[in-house]
Amino acid sequence: MSQFSSAVQETIDRIRADVSRLHSELTRYELVVWTGGNVSGRVPGEELFVIKPSGVSYDELAPDNMILCTLDGRAVPGSPGSDRSPSSDTAAHAYVYEHMAHVGGVVHTHSTYATAWAARGEEIPCHITGMADEFGGPIPVGPFAIIGDDSIGRGIVATLDGHRSKAVLMQNHGVFTIGKDAKDAVKAAVMCEDVARTTHIARQGGDLIPLPQDKIDALFDRYQNVYGQRGGAAEGESK
Amino acid sequence: MSQFSSAVQETIDRIRADVSRLHSELTRYELVVWTGGNVSGRVPGEELFVIKPSGVSYDELAPDNMILCTLDGRAVPGSPGSDRSPSSDTAAHAYVYEHMAHVGGVVHTHSTYATAWAARGEEIPCHITGMADEFGGPIPVGPFAIIGDDSIGRGIVATLDGHRSKAVLMQNHGVFTIGKDAKDAVKAAVMCEDVARTTHIARQGGDLIPLPQDKIDALFDRYQNVYGQRGGAAEGESK
Amino acid sequence: MSQFSSAVQETIDRIRADVSRLHSELTRYELVVWTGGNVSGRVPGEELFVIKPSGVSYDELAPDNMILCTLDGRAVPGSPGSDRSPSSDTAAHAYVYEHMAHVGGVVHTHSTYATAWAARGEEIPCHITGMADEFGGPIPVGPFAIIGDDSIGRGIVATLDGHRSKAVLMQNHGVFTIGKDAKDAVKAAVMCEDVARTTHIARQGGDLIPLPQDKIDALFDRYQNVYGQRGGAAEGESK
Amino acid sequence: MSQFSSAVQETIDRIRADVSRLHSELTRYELVVWTGGNVSGRVPGEELFVIKPSGVSYDELAPDNMILCTLDGRAVPGSPGSDRSPSSDTAAHAYVYEHMAHVGGVVHTHSTYATAWAARGEEIPCHITGMADEFGGPIPVGPFAIIGDDSIGRGIVATLDGHRSKAVLMQNHGVFTIGKDAKDAVKAAVMCEDVARTTHIARQGGDLIPLPQDKIDALFDRYQNVYGQRGGAAEGESK
Repeated sequence: MSQFSSAVQETIDRIRADVSRLHSELTRYELVVWTGGNVSGRVPGEELFVIKPSGVSYDELAPDNMILCTLDGRAVPGSPGSDRSPSSDTAAHAYVYEHMAHVGGVVHTHSTYATAWAARGEEIPCHITGMADEFGGPIPVGPFAIIGDDSIGRGIVATLDGHRSKAVLMQNHGVFTIGKDAKDAVKAAVMCEDVARTTHIARQGGDLIPLPQDKIDALFDRYQNVYGQRGGAAEGESK
Repeated sequence: MSQFSSAVQETIDRIRADVSRLHSELTRYELVVWTGGNVSGRVPGEELFVIKPSGVSYDELAPDNMILCTLDGRAVPGSPGSDRSPSSDTAAHAYVYEHMAHVGGVVHTHSTYATAWAARGEEIPCHITGMADEFGGPIPVGPFAIIGDDSIGRGIVATLDGHRSKAVLMQNHGVFTIGKDAKDAVKAAVMCEDVARTTHIARQGGDLIPLPQDKIDALFDRYQNVYGQRGGAAEGESK
Repeated sequence: MSQFSSAVQETIDRIRADVSRLHSELTRYELVVWTGGNVSGRVPGEELFVIKPSGVSYDELAPDNMILCTLDGRAVPGSPGSDRSPSSDTAAHAYVYEHMAHVGGVVHTHSTYATAWAARGEEIPCHITGMADEFGGPIPVGPFAIIGDDSIGRGIVATLDGHRSKAVLMQNHGVFTIGKDAKDAVKAAVMCEDVARTTHIARQGGDLIPLPQDKIDALFDRYQNVYGQRGGAAEGESK
Repeated sequence: MSQFSSAVQETIDRIRADVSRLHSELTRYELVVWTGGNVSGRVPGEELFVIKPSGVSYDELAPDNMILCTLDGRAVPGSPGSDRSPSSDTAAHAYVYEHMAHVGGVVHTHSTYATAWAARGEEIPCHITGMADEFGGPIPVGPFAIIGDDSIGRGIVATLDGHRSKAVLMQNHGVFTIGKDAKDAVKAAVMCEDVARTTHIARQGGDLIPLPQDKIDALFDRYQNVYGQRGGAAEGESK
């Protein structure tokens, strides 16, 4: 028998299905190799989130082996999948959910081009209108931090809190993205790699034309607000 | 009951099917990520065109959720799919159909290499015979223009009207292509990214050998005319 | 009723099936976009070869729409598929079959990296053991020649006749490869793009270590001869 | 009737299935073209290993056409598949199994970016945390050695014995990786190409930020040891 009310259980089941399925976007867009990336989603209204199990191949993911965690990053005992360990990045996801109340989804990848910028510790400048839409300016670099305590989570929050960007390049490491839900965070991860790649390749050929700040602002405002009135930016298609 | 004669309705249904299906070429050739690109097709003989709905994943496209629009870019009330918004790029497509009578299809993408040239505001020079066949010379750059009025549409028309090229690189933005029908415009989008990529990579390794103008002219004329006598360049295979 | 003896007809049917199926290797390895590449195969013992029809999508290829041609590049009247035009590159394939008796297969692509070397008119130097195995040295550049007469065919033959390489980079154009049969020529096209890409990327990072000529010779001899004793190089796996 | 006890036969059958199936990871991650790469796995407790047959397409691999070999690299007479030749790289695999008792799997590829570093004879420096996890530092370069005697095997062992890295770049040739079993070696091959590509691309854009040695050590120790206590690094997900 579930330890949750049937309404909460239904929500948990939906988030399990979403989080499981959304990993296929990471493989579709080649943002990950082997088991090196993960998606999580907050259970709305609860102090809970759902995340990928550690070391399980993307082919084997299913709603029932996703892991339900409390905001300290521990699996809820007795819940499906809780016999396995959650992703080794769970502590970072948990820290974000605990400290950024508006965040409903977190994604971590080592996608190639974004990680290349991260290895140089260089933010991705905003030269493309689609990047202005989605990120509202440059994608910033977060601190160097290694796994084992809450330093990765703290670095993500310190960099993204109050920033327009939904993506942060963790120095020498990879990318974390946030969103209003798991799908929105996955979209940010997909777009982050796309703009990292396009901007890298553009720059190989010479100097880029600057996008004026007022145009960046106009694009970002329209995408977040005008679109927002019709159901939210995540459903829009302004790029 | 349809508001159109059965002959017109049949044509509309065919264009809906074509436009829906042709989006799979954008994903097959990796010209788009997430929902960031769109195809439209004019309904021959009518002041109508069919376009992708906004924010719908490529996996979910079907003839019935394509949106039938009038040349002012508005969905035809009561037609299938008209409960959703058409692509946010609809105004640009509509402007092209209204001002370029020979255009039967329009495609918009942010394909990586083409957008990289666009971010530098640099036209793609013509060094490859297949590019001479399809584009008849360089692929030009259009003005910087942002979404919200008809400035993107005007920029496309001002650049392509009277130009050999079926593709324009909109500065800091992405690519628009035109064609005699939707399939022809999709082919131009596929070829545009292909020549953008090949020319970029070629130039990384050193100087390119110029293609003499008379050879470019001969290739373009043959592809457009000789082939045209046997059913049109879009059916040819001269590259 | 077939115009050929049943034994010849059986051979023709086998070559039709091979040539049709082998196009899927061009798409699998992303050597082609749209309809821009083609495979042909000689009918052993006959003055005939089988080639892709012009302008037909790779999804629609089937043994019965391949086109049987005589060595002047014309479809055999009344044979299946002869109501369509053969590939616009048929004249070049035909010229090769007519002038190189040992060639049983020809492939043409505009694969990205190989075409990039061709746009610079630069041969691909031999720095990788797998390239020494397959090509026995550099991949040479053929002359600039445009479609419309036999100049492409002559350029291929003039460059490859007596050369170790099965691939030629036609200047500003693309690649032609030859082989003992269609599969062998497809393998050469796949390997040509692979070594074009690897050598390009290697050189971006600095100077390459030369492969001594005697090592290249030893690798090529072993692959062609030692392997040949067990059924031919095309079946080997020395790379 | 099998020449092995039923327990050994069962183990051999399992390794045949694993080795056959794991080749699909080489194609999934585009580490190989045509037939140019191979996986082998030791039969635990026996002086035997299982390897890909020579020149067989990845589409046709099946447990029963994998080849069971003794540690001198010869097929076991009468075993399934022994009518075909084992991979032409079998001697190198055999040498590794004979001289590195802890190795349970070997993989060979010519994956693009890793081979590019190999063509320059340049080790891949360690600037990414995921590389520190998996390889514990740079990926070293082994000697130039050509097929035909045991010089490739000796070069692999001389380079990797006592080294943290599970991957070696054989100069002007390609990559060999080792692991506790075939899956672990495949993971190393996938990760090697991933870090080769990311580091190459990162360096194209400017200088990389060094990873301090003590951080590399901490990451490697944690991944190998902390994870090891819960079932081994190969099951972990620390990147």
